[in-house]
Amino acid sequence: MKEFKNGKIVSNAMQLDCFFYPKNVAVIGASGESKSIGFTIFQNFLKSGFCKKVFPVNPNHKIVQGKKTFQSVKEIPVDLDLAVIVVPAKFVPKVLLECVEKGVEAAIIISAGFSEIGEKKLTAELAEIIRQNPQTRVIGPNCFGITVPENGLDTTFSERRKMGIPKAGNVSFMSQSGALGIAVMDWISTQKFGISKFVSYGNAMDVDETDLLEYFNGDKKTKVITMYLEGVKHGRKFFEIAKKTTPKTPIIALKGGITPETHKATASHTGSLAGSAEVYNALFKQTGIIQAKNLFELFHFAKTLEREPLPDGKTVQIITNGGGYGIITADSVIENGLELSKLSIKSLEKLKKIFPKIATLGNPMDLTGGADSKMYVEAAKTALIDSNVAMVMVLILFNTPAIDSKIVKELIELKKRAKKPLIVVSTGSAYTAKRLIELENGGITTFNYPHVAARCLKILAEYSEFKKEANEKN
Amino acid sequence: MKEFKNGKIVSNAMQLDCFFYPKNVAVIGASGESKSIGFTIFQNFLKSGFCKKVFPVNPNHKIVQGKKTFQSVKEIPVDLDLAVIVVPAKFVPKVLLECVEKGVEAAIIISAGFSEIGEKKLTAELAEIIRQNPQTRVIGPNCFGITVPENGLDTTFSERRKMGIPKAGNVSFMSQSGALGIAVMDWISTQKFGISKFVSYGNAMDVDETDLLEYFNGDKKTKVITMYLEGVKHGRKFFEIAKKTTPKTPIIALKGGITPETHKATASHTGSLAGSAEVYNALFKQTGIIQAKNLFELFHFAKTLEREPLPDGKTVQIITNGGGYGIITADSVIENGLELSKLSIKSLEKLKKIFPKIATLGNPMDLTGGADSKMYVEAAKTALIDSNVAMVMVLILFNTPAIDSKIVKELIELKKRAKKPLIVVSTGSAYTAKRLIELENGGITTFNYPHVAARCLKILAEYSEFKKEANEKN
Repeated sequence: MKEFKNGKIVSNAMQLDCFFYPKNVAVIGASGESKSIGFTIFQNFLKSGFCKKVFPVNPNHKIVQGKKTFQSVKEIPVDLDLAVIVVPAKFVPKVLLECVEKGVEAAIIISAGFSEIGEKKLTAELAEIIRQNPQTRVIGPNCFGITVPENGLDTTFSERRKMGIPKAGNVSFMSQSGALGIAVMDWISTQKFGISKFVSYGNAMDVDETDLLEYFNGDKKTKVITMYLEGVKHGRKFFEIAKKTTPKTPIIALKGGITPETHKATASHTGSLAGSAEVYNALFKQTGIIQAKNLFELFHFAKTLEREPLPDGKTVQIITNGGGYGIITADSVIENGLELSKLSIKSLEKLKKIFPKIATLGNPMDLTGGADSKMYVEAAKTALIDSNVAMVMVLILFNTPAIDSKIVKELIELKKRAKKPLIVVSTGSAYTAKRLIELENGGITTFNYPHVAARCLKILAEYSEFKKEANEKN
Repeated sequence: MKEFKNGKIVSNAMQLDCFFYPKNVAVIGASGESKSIGFTIFQNFLKSGFCKKVFPVNPNHKIVQGKKTFQSVKEIPVDLDLAVIVVPAKFVPKVLLECVEKGVEAAIIISAGFSEIGEKKLTAELAEIIRQNPQTRVIGPNCFGITVPENGLDTTFSERRKMGIPKAGNVSFMSQSGALGIAVMDWISTQKFGISKFVSYGNAMDVDETDLLEYFNGDKKTKVITMYLEGVKHGRKFFEIAKKTTPKTPIIALKGGITPETHKATASHTGSLAGSAEVYNALFKQTGIIQAKNLFELFHFAKTLEREPLPDGKTVQIITNGGGYGIITADSVIENGLELSKLSIKSLEKLKKIFPKIATLGNPMDLTGGADSKMYVEAAKTALIDSNVAMVMVLILFNTPAIDSKIVKELIELKKRAKKPLIVVSTGSAYTAKRLIELENGGITTFNYPHVAARCLKILAEYSEFKKEANEKN
């Protein structure tokens, strides 16, 4: 967070654009030694779409990874939006000053060795440079950096052979913890949803969670904001921005250090003020931030909120071709405070006419193992237009002989016109996984486990209600 | 469940052996029509290790799938242990009688069309044959059948192109619901643990959950019993056998129909008496059955109980190379009622000498991103011999440059000598997944998510305490 200068705001969220959409980038500390961080970061740039606009800086080499290398950032003959700094901590203040002199708009300091290890002198020196030069915004130090799948920007030191890159999408993620950031980014690359912006912001000596929240709030490519938080630096401002954001864009937070024991550990490991669980519970509740209990929830909530329309109510119609499978799903739906919808008499009469007698037209609606694509489509279509139904949960065991591949195409068609949430759940191996990916590619949100799907629909219904109330007040 | 005859027990659990280890099998209703269930079942037999001992029966064909076919089971020139029956419901009584006359010891009736659709006459006819002939045990009707990965037996109609087969292992599973059975079996095939015996027992006109429980209790190849239950037919006997089983073999149950709404649905869909959630909660508690909240829990609990030694206490030492990753894990450990262990002064002094200063020797023990295999092994070794520690949770971000492939081998070596639970948690994509599979193959239980691992250790600690108390009483 930057300050005012001469009564003028010298920093604001939109300044952060240069971090995510830079034209010309310098990698200061780019290296040719294959096991160093400076090697991996520069290599990732060369391999990505940013290769023509990246300038290596290293006073000890004239060529790094085959590219002409500059002694100092000041020698680079073009204007720079972004500098990624990976030099040893003791050189960071000098290098950052050179960036300021060069007029670089944004700097990401990957280097560690500051407050997180109790290094006071260097930290103070860096803080002073940052304070005096608000025109250069800084992320870090001691961070993992930024990834923007949309344009290929990746300032992190992820080794490609060891880590995946998430697909482009509309969920943005921020994390104080670099380690958690690494795990999350790698894991998301295996998931069926995409990322808009990923930021690991480390010690947050300038840009912090509040700045990023404000930026994401104004970012058209961000539909859902997710964050891993241990502490918040500027509680009041964070509160205000969060309160302004949630009626428009959902925020999902995973809070680390929620017990007295772990609270102590977070305080020691990031050096930030980690408030008690109660303080954060209150903060989240008052601002409408959705709290996830674990990583798994964080991103399943995000995926659902990104893709599904907001429901008008909390009734769910379950449609299935497996009795027991429907029952455990209904159990989860009710345990999550949702309701099993009751189809209108009109809907029931319509379905009774076309379905065989063994189908159970309750909720769960059990089409039985003999159900084919046509029965599923009729059932889902009817539920979608029935005003007693707010959300439709389609459970499919794809391995029954009666289910053919047509069901994927037909559900996708139905979903295109649907104004209610319609999700698909299926538990299985490779054959089932393929069908789910086809559905996802066609715009349908899918889940492997009924209890996860139910929990996500609960969050969707709750956010829908929150948003409606928040916007009615304004 | 069979009855007594002339004052002698004519049925007992060990009679069920012929279902799982048959020598000669007849498939009655084996078919050459590729979309029929009789086709798939017989094809699965031909493709499995049972091919030489299987006899197709079909009065309408002389050759089915290239094999000489018999008009009736009575024509088969050898003694039969098992008959799999897949003829239309109306022929089932006649066919079963022929099996009785032939002296077949066990029959699995896959065919549906009995009490589950309200068909009273056929059901009564079948019931009478079963009652009068206790020497032939029956599973079904309306079931998915049996799979025994150990010997290749598979009486189900899983199409191989659509479904996986679980690996051989020590977890046995029973399900009333065929649909849930299908989903579970297919899904387990993607998991890192194996199955001893899988049984979908359908309408349970003879063999029911109580018989299977008794059989699994006496089965040397079953170390953990899992079940999906909607209702129990013989509550008192089930209670007694469960109570006898749990001090020796853990039982994990997922109960379907735990809310008033779904309770009604289970009663209608299987026709069995589904008691209220409270009744089952009491049953599970009094017998020491571990209740899973969902499918995911059911099998993660099973995997942990199958593989890990029982801990002496509920203290957990977390070792990590990622600060935030350790924090969320510690949160989950505490939320699950476990305790963060405090290493002895001796352990701490030993580690202080050999670790760099930036490592945090608390709990989580944060070895930081620079941690290598050697640090991990020293930390784990120390925790394993420290009497303040009951369980060791090793969290590894495999994508850091400092972690090399040696860590897998070294942890496996350590685990071989470990007498405490030692599990590994890592969240990531393909590179990480490979390391986890290597660890699993070496005998280490691994998890993708910290909160799942913590929940499993809680169950492990609770079962350990339960077993100790139960055995002290006896």
